Amino acid sequence: MRYLLEEMTWPEVREALESVKLAIIPLGAHEQHGPHLKESCDAVLAEEFAKRLAERLYPWALVTPRVSFGISLHHIHFPGTITLRPETLTQLLRDVVWSLHQHGLENFLIINSHTGNQSTLDVTCTSLTHEFGVNMYYAKTTAGAKDAIRKYVRSDLYGHSCEREVSEALYLAPHLVRQDHLEAGQIRPGHWRLLRPDQPVRGFYYYDEMTANGCIGDAPSASVEAGRAIVEEALDHLELSMRILLGLPDDSERRKPEGV
Amino acid sequence: MRYLLEEMTWPEVREALESVKLAIIPLGAHEQHGPHLKESCDAVLAEEFAKRLAERLYPWALVTPRVSFGISLHHIHFPGTITLRPETLTQLLRDVVWSLHQHGLENFLIINSHTGNQSTLDVTCTSLTHEFGVNMYYAKTTAGAKDAIRKYVRSDLYGHSCEREVSEALYLAPHLVRQDHLEAGQIRPGHWRLLRPDQPVRGFYYYDEMTANGCIGDAPSASVEAGRAIVEEALDHLELSMRILLGLPDDSERRKPEGV
Amino acid sequence: MRYLLEEMTWPEVREALESVKLAIIPLGAHEQHGPHLKESCDAVLAEEFAKRLAERLYPWALVTPRVSFGISLHHIHFPGTITLRPETLTQLLRDVVWSLHQHGLENFLIINSHTGNQSTLDVTCTSLTHEFGVNMYYAKTTAGAKDAIRKYVRSDLYGHSCEREVSEALYLAPHLVRQDHLEAGQIRPGHWRLLRPDQPVRGFYYYDEMTANGCIGDAPSASVEAGRAIVEEALDHLELSMRILLGLPDDSERRKPEGV
Amino acid sequence: MRYLLEEMTWPEVREALESVKLAIIPLGAHEQHGPHLKESCDAVLAEEFAKRLAERLYPWALVTPRVSFGISLHHIHFPGTITLRPETLTQLLRDVVWSLHQHGLENFLIINSHTGNQSTLDVTCTSLTHEFGVNMYYAKTTAGAKDAIRKYVRSDLYGHSCEREVSEALYLAPHLVRQDHLEAGQIRPGHWRLLRPDQPVRGFYYYDEMTANGCIGDAPSASVEAGRAIVEEALDHLELSMRILLGLPDDSERRKPEGV
Amino acid sequence: MRYLLEEMTWPEVREALESVKLAIIPLGAHEQHGPHLKESCDAVLAEEFAKRLAERLYPWALVTPRVSFGISLHHIHFPGTITLRPETLTQLLRDVVWSLHQHGLENFLIINSHTGNQSTLDVTCTSLTHEFGVNMYYAKTTAGAKDAIRKYVRSDLYGHSCEREVSEALYLAPHLVRQDHLEAGQIRPGHWRLLRPDQPVRGFYYYDEMTANGCIGDAPSASVEAGRAIVEEALDHLELSMRILLGLPDDSERRKPEGV
Amino acid sequence: MRYLLEEMTWPEVREALESVKLAIIPLGAHEQHGPHLKESCDAVLAEEFAKRLAERLYPWALVTPRVSFGISLHHIHFPGTITLRPETLTQLLRDVVWSLHQHGLENFLIINSHTGNQSTLDVTCTSLTHEFGVNMYYAKTTAGAKDAIRKYVRSDLYGHSCEREVSEALYLAPHLVRQDHLEAGQIRPGHWRLLRPDQPVRGFYYYDEMTANGCIGDAPSASVEAGRAIVEEALDHLELSMRILLGLPDDSERRKPEGV
Repeated sequence: MRYLLEEMTWPEVREALESVKLAIIPLGAHEQHGPHLKESCDAVLAEEFAKRLAERLYPWALVTPRVSFGISLHHIHFPGTITLRPETLTQLLRDVVWSLHQHGLENFLIINSHTGNQSTLDVTCTSLTHEFGVNMYYAKTTAGAKDAIRKYVRSDLYGHSCEREVSEALYLAPHLVRQDHLEAGQIRPGHWRLLRPDQPVRGFYYYDEMTANGCIGDAPSASVEAGRAIVEEALDHLELSMRILLGLPDDSERRKPEGV
Repeated sequence: MRYLLEEMTWPEVREALESVKLAIIPLGAHEQHGPHLKESCDAVLAEEFAKRLAERLYPWALVTPRVSFGISLHHIHFPGTITLRPETLTQLLRDVVWSLHQHGLENFLIINSHTGNQSTLDVTCTSLTHEFGVNMYYAKTTAGAKDAIRKYVRSDLYGHSCEREVSEALYLAPHLVRQDHLEAGQIRPGHWRLLRPDQPVRGFYYYDEMTANGCIGDAPSASVEAGRAIVEEALDHLELSMRILLGLPDDSERRKPEGV
Repeated sequence: MRYLLEEMTWPEVREALESVKLAIIPLGAHEQHGPHLKESCDAVLAEEFAKRLAERLYPWALVTPRVSFGISLHHIHFPGTITLRPETLTQLLRDVVWSLHQHGLENFLIINSHTGNQSTLDVTCTSLTHEFGVNMYYAKTTAGAKDAIRKYVRSDLYGHSCEREVSEALYLAPHLVRQDHLEAGQIRPGHWRLLRPDQPVRGFYYYDEMTANGCIGDAPSASVEAGRAIVEEALDHLELSMRILLGLPDDSERRKPEGV
Repeated sequence: MRYLLEEMTWPEVREALESVKLAIIPLGAHEQHGPHLKESCDAVLAEEFAKRLAERLYPWALVTPRVSFGISLHHIHFPGTITLRPETLTQLLRDVVWSLHQHGLENFLIINSHTGNQSTLDVTCTSLTHEFGVNMYYAKTTAGAKDAIRKYVRSDLYGHSCEREVSEALYLAPHLVRQDHLEAGQIRPGHWRLLRPDQPVRGFYYYDEMTANGCIGDAPSASVEAGRAIVEEALDHLELSMRILLGLPDDSERRKPEGV
Repeated sequence: MRYLLEEMTWPEVREALESVKLAIIPLGAHEQHGPHLKESCDAVLAEEFAKRLAERLYPWALVTPRVSFGISLHHIHFPGTITLRPETLTQLLRDVVWSLHQHGLENFLIINSHTGNQSTLDVTCTSLTHEFGVNMYYAKTTAGAKDAIRKYVRSDLYGHSCEREVSEALYLAPHLVRQDHLEAGQIRPGHWRLLRPDQPVRGFYYYDEMTANGCIGDAPSASVEAGRAIVEEALDHLELSMRILLGLPDDSERRKPEGV
Repeated sequence: MRYLLEEMTWPEVREALESVKLAIIPLGAHEQHGPHLKESCDAVLAEEFAKRLAERLYPWALVTPRVSFGISLHHIHFPGTITLRPETLTQLLRDVVWSLHQHGLENFLIINSHTGNQSTLDVTCTSLTHEFGVNMYYAKTTAGAKDAIRKYVRSDLYGHSCEREVSEALYLAPHLVRQDHLEAGQIRPGHWRLLRPDQPVRGFYYYDEMTANGCIGDAPSASVEAGRAIVEEALDHLELSMRILLGLPDDSERRKPEGV
């Protein structure tokens, strides 16, 4: 496939760079995902999602090798979790961007599947814009699929190994799912409720303070249908945004958002 | 005042530490705020807000000297703006926390008035929890005042030198406001719309790409009444959260949130 | 006031930058000052002193927000003291200088009220001159007031919460002083005497090895008269030096030092 | 497979950790490999090799996610190459080791397929032994296959996209090879000959100074037979070394894991 | 000689460590010293001075290898000058101290011959005291020789390649001196006068702004007699201070080591 | 001597720089060398070797002050050993190279006598080539003397305080050798054998795991004759390589400098 750097030789990359304007960097995490998802879940989903986006943006985008590790200190009490320090992730992305900038690229989109990476990405994008003068973008894979999520996700508390994530996995990479171990989150009482994103105070807590089995939400209600709806809606939005940001030729079926 | 570190001698601090459980660190920014707010606006508002919160939490909280600089690279094209790099802010807060931890404190709440600092604070809190084993919290000053903001803030696009911020200033520190220069934001068209918090893609843009005068929203519609409503609602929520998080004795007028 | 960055809007800064050649950065510390001075003493005195210097240099100088923290590890055993590591202070000042350099400034004067910062400032000035090619200066607030200090300061050992510092506070910011708690230093015997600035060997010691109450010198003999004499003599010298260094127009009452 | 962290859930990791003594970290590079190998070659070969070694060491070893980037500055002039700075790779490995050390592991083997990483690994192992007190090992994948290399590799100059590497790829991951583009190295004259590992002087040179097509050696003479001989001889040596270093029971007692 | 680490084998060091309480680290600089002193002057003088001090403190002190580079950015415009950045010198000294602390030493005295290093040493000593809990001392070689300097040094401006330094060299290491090129400083007018240590403002300036030939003072008036007086007075003071700081028995009991 | 920076004044350096193309940086270590070599052995041998090489390359090369410390963590259990962390050595060399680059030099050869420094040098050379665009070379002093080593060195295990190193010392700096304490290595059994350079696995081990007296090989069989043969063969190779790399005129035209 002529848009995956891992699958190309250097003469093929040279040819692709004649049209490519955007490098897409898939970023995941290696962390526990309860009893029903493999620990590589985030890395695999980010990569699969990035491939589909790049396919839509062909021949203007390339996918780099995925970054398989992220910021997962809050999961470290569960066996197998590996975490980077934020500064390590920033420097790793900095070197990837520097390298591709040497080959002439000016636009970078980090496709991130793990919420715990978002703050570090915000910091990183500011720093790299400043250091290199390139255009840095990042997106949480399916955060833009508001309609489908409203339709298919019923849990109040969701976002990790929940019906949304399992549905995405069933659609994008079903080998990640242990269908015979699907469990709803075993939520624990605790102060973490006071530190959730919709609360006035934020702060660090370990995931095992919140859930005994490492999940939240209701994984058994996941479906491939929900996964397809969520992923494709998210891809629609991302594709459109990137076409406008990169000044790519219009795509007949899509409309420009108002006010841009 | 016996809860402001800047106003105390060391014997007074020694005495206060017999009851104090929480250090409140006010964090602002030094950056342009349009033609109608002084550049110290964020730092002053954070400090004033922190003082009121500490008063409510007396004798369990102390306010440290404010940190007057934040992450403001996006404002650097406007004269006078000063920005820290994210790692500088992290290290500065790290040293403040280290020092107070030497004096026996275990709980830290950063009261932040500048949205541009939030990601760095998230990263910082993870790092410092990890390094010192302390409890790190942070809060955007009035983000919790959802009802009052819904009532008083009419602009679609607000959050900087807008009616919300000017109202807060009119209530907390009216000397910050140039009443005779109140202007609505002079919004410019551009790609920044595609990178706002509610959009699928995030990324860095300079504030002057978005607004010609450095403001967004509608500052002329600000009022001290709105400021009082916003600030006091936010303080109510924060006080309650911190009382629970710190295990402080109950406050008769307040109820515990459900499920905690 | 049109020379205090904290008090200005960005259009006012833009206008001021038409004449301004110098940024004055007040630097203090947050540390114990015995039973008779608030812990913010150094930060407040640096800021007040910087304002008076800027007033004399108007319209060629601006005062930035003060840096309220310094190098105070030697005071950490006294409750409330907060210290930065030297590298943190260097990076903080680096970012302030970088930012103002973006706005066109080439000359920077750090007004420092805390002796414990002087070595870090020397290192910082070398580094920033090297990195940015700007002109870096620093001054210990009243070190230049040799005549007045000789006249008013009687203690052999002075320099912290002593009659000199309390006098300066009485003149510049009397609210810092607890008049009813003025105490002379309660000096302890110890090896610290062998490590004072006039000794052949230097080295680190904690302040509580030297003094039981955190003071040295004789605070009860302080007076506003002494403070005025010290501060104004120091300002005279600093103003003159800066006028020559910046190539400012002459000030009729002052003479150029010989040999320059 | 119960020895690949990427394929496991956290309860499965927990169970595996009851016997596991060794974490194997596959490390590659993303760099040009001439017209006949994909740029992911090193990362894929390291991962495949690591899996086979872990299978032999079951149930005492686990394979972590692969690190897909290495030290490739010397290849940066060829399109698509991505390089880390040495300190970035060290910090990345440091965080992986730290995390797994939290889960109780004390022995770490980095399986490295890219010669350009060896010096950084040496430095990293010294640093991490020092910081964590763990046992750090690293191995160039097939460097130990001296007999097979002597038998099958005829080129004087080999080691990158040569008959050895292509043979390994044909055996371990044939999809990496563009069979219809196999080319011998197009060697250029130059000072690089004076800086090869067998020379008295070492130093940095870019790979395009040495070869026009990015290869050295004679890729067309590669064969799956050679690959099998090289890889299996290397695995034999490594397995034996690790069994001794870890104090494992003799090979004869080993059972293949079920379902592998 | 049994007090110079460079001259000892490890069994000899082991034996010496039975009595040794202090490591003396000679620190110089590699920088221009005008037409009449070799560029290694500071490093050589620091080492010679340290040896004499260690001899006086036998068997309680050891001399480490000298650190031949210092902070010399202000001399960089003169050919041959080499400078460290302050953080490099700090880290280098940190590693030397860490290593010797592993061997059981708790007291460290840096004998420094170059004024430009003093601020970095102050910062370093604070940091290392903090990090390791050891006792850090530093001394400018002959700064304590106040009587002899008053007697022999006549220049108003002295301190680098002047009669004081040349005299010290004539006494300690005469091979450093080009007797046939002794020159007085060729002083240039300039703003540097306003930035000297006795002035109210400090700041960075290059040495070539001050002197055309790299010297100040009056080297031709140097003498071995002056050198002896200065060095021996300084040694007397330093020896006494260190004896008290280390709690050593009185001088009278001291015997000269055999074979020295 | 007009090719040793330590022995020159700045006017002499200025003159030398008219022809000099290469800076030679001697790098050693301060570490135990058994009972028969002083701990400064590596530093002294590197310096002596560098001087001889510079003499051969006169007037095209200069020798800088030696770096007396290296990477010696594996020797730290022997009294007196001092080690740098790898990043400290890199930064130190970086500053030396930066400084000399300011004086116009573009080629740098690090003459290293300590195997434990080689990996760090490889990393350093890559980094500095990248940062400064200079030509970085490094050489293990006598590694190129393959014939002489084959002839004179009989031990299977050699490389530290062995007959090779003692022979070099007898030829280059006989004062380093305690002739009356020459001992063969007292080798201990252990896992270190599995981690030697010719083994498939590499890894960190402490030297005292390998040898009880800190030596390997057979020091008593050393001779000045062997030393001469090894050193001169190595110098021949290095001189030739550097002449080609620097594009110097043929050896025959070379004249010995006057007064050397």
